[in-house]
Amino acid sequence: MFSKEVYSARRKALLGLMAEKGAKGLAIFVGNGESAQNYPDNCYKFRQDSSFLYFWGIDEPYWAATLDLETGQETLYADDVDIDDIIWMGPQESVASKALGAGVSATASYSDFDKAVSSARASERDIHFLPASRYFNAVKIASLLSLDPRRLFSEGKKGCPLASEALVRSVISLRLVKDEQEIALIDRACNLGYKMHETARKGIRPGVCEQEIVGRMEGVTLSEGWGTSFATILTQHGEIFHCHSHEALIEPGRLLVVDAGAESNDHYASDHTRTYPTSGKFTTRQREIYQIVCDCNELAFRLTAPGVRYRDVHLAVARHMLDCLSGLGLVRGDVGEMVAAGVAGLFMPHGLGHNMGMDVHDMEDFGENLVGYDDDQTRSAQLGLGSLRMARTLVPGNVVTDEPGIYFIPDLIESWKRDGIAKDFVNYSKLGEYYGFGGIRLEDDVLVTSDGARRLGDRRLPISPDEVESAMKED
Amino acid sequence: MFSKEVYSARRKALLGLMAEKGAKGLAIFVGNGESAQNYPDNCYKFRQDSSFLYFWGIDEPYWAATLDLETGQETLYADDVDIDDIIWMGPQESVASKALGAGVSATASYSDFDKAVSSARASERDIHFLPASRYFNAVKIASLLSLDPRRLFSEGKKGCPLASEALVRSVISLRLVKDEQEIALIDRACNLGYKMHETARKGIRPGVCEQEIVGRMEGVTLSEGWGTSFATILTQHGEIFHCHSHEALIEPGRLLVVDAGAESNDHYASDHTRTYPTSGKFTTRQREIYQIVCDCNELAFRLTAPGVRYRDVHLAVARHMLDCLSGLGLVRGDVGEMVAAGVAGLFMPHGLGHNMGMDVHDMEDFGENLVGYDDDQTRSAQLGLGSLRMARTLVPGNVVTDEPGIYFIPDLIESWKRDGIAKDFVNYSKLGEYYGFGGIRLEDDVLVTSDGARRLGDRRLPISPDEVESAMKED
Repeated sequence: MFSKEVYSARRKALLGLMAEKGAKGLAIFVGNGESAQNYPDNCYKFRQDSSFLYFWGIDEPYWAATLDLETGQETLYADDVDIDDIIWMGPQESVASKALGAGVSATASYSDFDKAVSSARASERDIHFLPASRYFNAVKIASLLSLDPRRLFSEGKKGCPLASEALVRSVISLRLVKDEQEIALIDRACNLGYKMHETARKGIRPGVCEQEIVGRMEGVTLSEGWGTSFATILTQHGEIFHCHSHEALIEPGRLLVVDAGAESNDHYASDHTRTYPTSGKFTTRQREIYQIVCDCNELAFRLTAPGVRYRDVHLAVARHMLDCLSGLGLVRGDVGEMVAAGVAGLFMPHGLGHNMGMDVHDMEDFGENLVGYDDDQTRSAQLGLGSLRMARTLVPGNVVTDEPGIYFIPDLIESWKRDGIAKDFVNYSKLGEYYGFGGIRLEDDVLVTSDGARRLGDRRLPISPDEVESAMKED
Repeated sequence: MFSKEVYSARRKALLGLMAEKGAKGLAIFVGNGESAQNYPDNCYKFRQDSSFLYFWGIDEPYWAATLDLETGQETLYADDVDIDDIIWMGPQESVASKALGAGVSATASYSDFDKAVSSARASERDIHFLPASRYFNAVKIASLLSLDPRRLFSEGKKGCPLASEALVRSVISLRLVKDEQEIALIDRACNLGYKMHETARKGIRPGVCEQEIVGRMEGVTLSEGWGTSFATILTQHGEIFHCHSHEALIEPGRLLVVDAGAESNDHYASDHTRTYPTSGKFTTRQREIYQIVCDCNELAFRLTAPGVRYRDVHLAVARHMLDCLSGLGLVRGDVGEMVAAGVAGLFMPHGLGHNMGMDVHDMEDFGENLVGYDDDQTRSAQLGLGSLRMARTLVPGNVVTDEPGIYFIPDLIESWKRDGIAKDFVNYSKLGEYYGFGGIRLEDDVLVTSDGARRLGDRRLPISPDEVESAMKED
């Protein structure tokens, strides 16, 4: 994917950051193994660990690497194939040759990795590892270091206490800032995401099964890319965030939320959301709410720039949203007080966006707080703002999503109403009229540039109500 | 999927089989968790453990079950959702209600499963479990029983020594024989597989990238089914069995092997292989070899019947293949002696077929020998026959694949030639002319009926050379 000089430079930068933190010993990297679909020999499509790809560039199962923080020695571990393997897998490039492509001249067998770690452990050297992304890696590290594999994953937002915080922080500071070549690859992933969404939009017609559309759009990503960057959300229940059921038939007059992304063959992600009126035309009420979300998306984009905290962009969006909802009579009172009280969370119980790169939620296996928050930032406990995954001060090269939404979630509204939450601000009786509404979310992928921001991908998916209706008419 | 009576009957049958074997104690079943794609919260499409689906019918992550072999008590363990979950996942049916759908009236929390197993262990009761299909299940069982998770998988063909052989054998004897409803579901999966293959065939044109065809055909399976039943093989290097690279452009005059299957939304598999001339017409040499494979496929189908050992069908195919290759001057000598010497393995280094059901290689996580061999059968060490996954005496309700193939694998041929293997039988100098040929495989899914066999699916994919050429002309 990248030249060997790029991988070498990344590892050199990592060594520098670790040295700044006074870290010594051995940094270890366990690449992914195959992941069983229904039995160990029948696997899901192979996906390498993102940090392994970033530093070592090897996109194959059963590789590992060590980086000696004191000597700078870099070693890749994997097994060459024998004649039996050649029959099944065809002639293969040697491990040594693949390693050279990543700028690494020292290689050893896969089992030598275990020996290298055991030997470092026996010499009481520090062993730095990242939180596990999968059980495979957890079991491997746990067996080498005599730990419980279940404790090697991040514990929710706060990360994994057993992993090396120095290594985690160093990797985050490198991967959070994308270079030009990475940005070009994300642009390409977004172009594939565009095609995927266009395919979806053209398939929307009352009577069609949601799954049929999902299959067709995922086929597009598989034809040109690795697959989807996350499980496609395509639902007329936009108010249910993790609705992965696609059994329903498209009904007229509804709103269809399509939140989907492609992962390119180079393993960079796209992530876009559009919301469509299933009949091709918004109703007046749908258009009113849609326009608010659309304006919030635009506002966030305009505010996104180096030096700005993304938390403040989230709050500006919350303010604008409440201001508009006030105009519709759904909330009332001082907007500043409503923002402070977290009233926006009733309508948008998620954050404005997240980091994106090789992972659609970039590096989230490290723990959301370390990835998305500056050291002086404390995560809010409020609904919505508390779910914000990216709060940091933006720097050029950051890639974030801009994804405001408004949802009417009957269970949530009823729960707030019952508990008297924000009862002075929220017009609960009027909200009752919106119970069958569903939800709207509009999401773009945004690069922070030297003087502002740029939406990624060559073309932007239709987004204004008029653009959407006109695109659906042409489809 | 099935009625609660079906699930209850399956568990009752399992209890009966375990009692016959004198097994006591507690049988435990760990359903699958989510499986991380690139980080724990970004998962591959959920696939339940097949045996869990078979006995308990629950197609959701993080369920477990116990079956008391002495009292017959059946319990399902899972957690109901709270208000936070409802916001993200929408209102959910209760655990108790889902369990009733599988005919189970006793439910408890997911953590109660751990308690039930620990308590049985404390009382020194036997705990019966199946080999792990994934690391998730391995880690869970290992932690409950203080075992090394890596030892809970089958060790190659012989199974997992720590798992319960009584349970494994009982489950195999049930799942190997499909009932009418299962057969109807496999027919439907095969119909979806038909569409998938038809889509592939229509896409074959010189200059097209293999990945483009793969994506389009996989889109078909996702539109109507769960996805692919295994990683699609679509390659002009048919001689490389596990070629999962799809970067090449279709070249004229080549052979394209398409080995692909669909998994239905009910989680039954299809598995078909066809081999196409990339230019739409076979060359004379291609047609000669193709016709042999096609005849072998037909021969195997005609021989498939209750009471017949599938190992013998494999050997009959080997005999016919060598007889035909002898006619082409590629081998020479007594056909019986060649079969006995394993010469067929040079051309077909795999078995004739395997069991198929919910898993495309049904139950292969239990170890191939227990699944595919009768107790009085010993697995051959020969190339080809030694890879035969299904050797058993056939009974009505068995579903097997019929997939002969002929490949010219330069590395393998050179290795035999160098070692002087079968030098009296093989015409190595003539074989040299076939080094760029590639390979041909033709595969159908076959049900063993009361008096013979039936190919599954409503329609058979074009298979004779004329049928294939004429279908490609129409495409």
